[in-house]
Amino acid sequence: MIRHLVLFKLDEGVSRDEPRVVAGHEAFAALDGVIPELKSWQCGWNITVRDIAYDYAIVCDVEDRDALQRYIAHPDHQAAAGRWREFATWVVADLES
Amino acid sequence: MIRHLVLFKLDEGVSRDEPRVVAGHEAFAALDGVIPELKSWQCGWNITVRDIAYDYAIVCDVEDRDALQRYIAHPDHQAAAGRWREFATWVVADLES
Repeated sequence: MIRHLVLFKLDEGVSRDEPRVVAGHEAFAALDGVIPELKSWQCGWNITVRDIAYDYAIVCDVEDRDALQRYIAHPDHQAAAGRWREFATWVVADLES
Repeated sequence: MIRHLVLFKLDEGVSRDEPRVVAGHEAFAALDGVIPELKSWQCGWNITVRDIAYDYAIVCDVEDRDALQRYIAHPDHQAAAGRWREFATWVVADLES
């Protein structure tokens, strides 16, 4: 199993309640149950105020590296990531267990 | 429940197999079962080669914000984080569920 982690940082001046940002969250939230490779799915806003805190995160589990690639290539995931590309940057890590 | 996510980036020129880095991983791995606030615990090296990939990650679950603060303040966690401060930087996000 691979746990796929993504932490997003909103660009300077972007706020969580902008319609495009709300739509970005909804696009990620809608992936749950739609992409068959996802064994688990969680996305949401960071709740802690710290200098090193990013704004938003995804935690999901997929079976293996092939499943991870299929998830990343899925058109609904690509569309959601495309929305976020307009107002945020992100970093990732994948843990094997 | 709060899911606490940390992604670490090794400083330029630091490699995973340096003794201080191996010891840093072992210090985090040893927290499992030691800090009572931890409802789940996972730490390990990133397995994906991407420009936006960080090197190491922690995913853990704690009951609430108070438990998160007790975890962060725990001397064993502080000691492990102190090791990592010598050779890495990190970003965090906390998701509530």
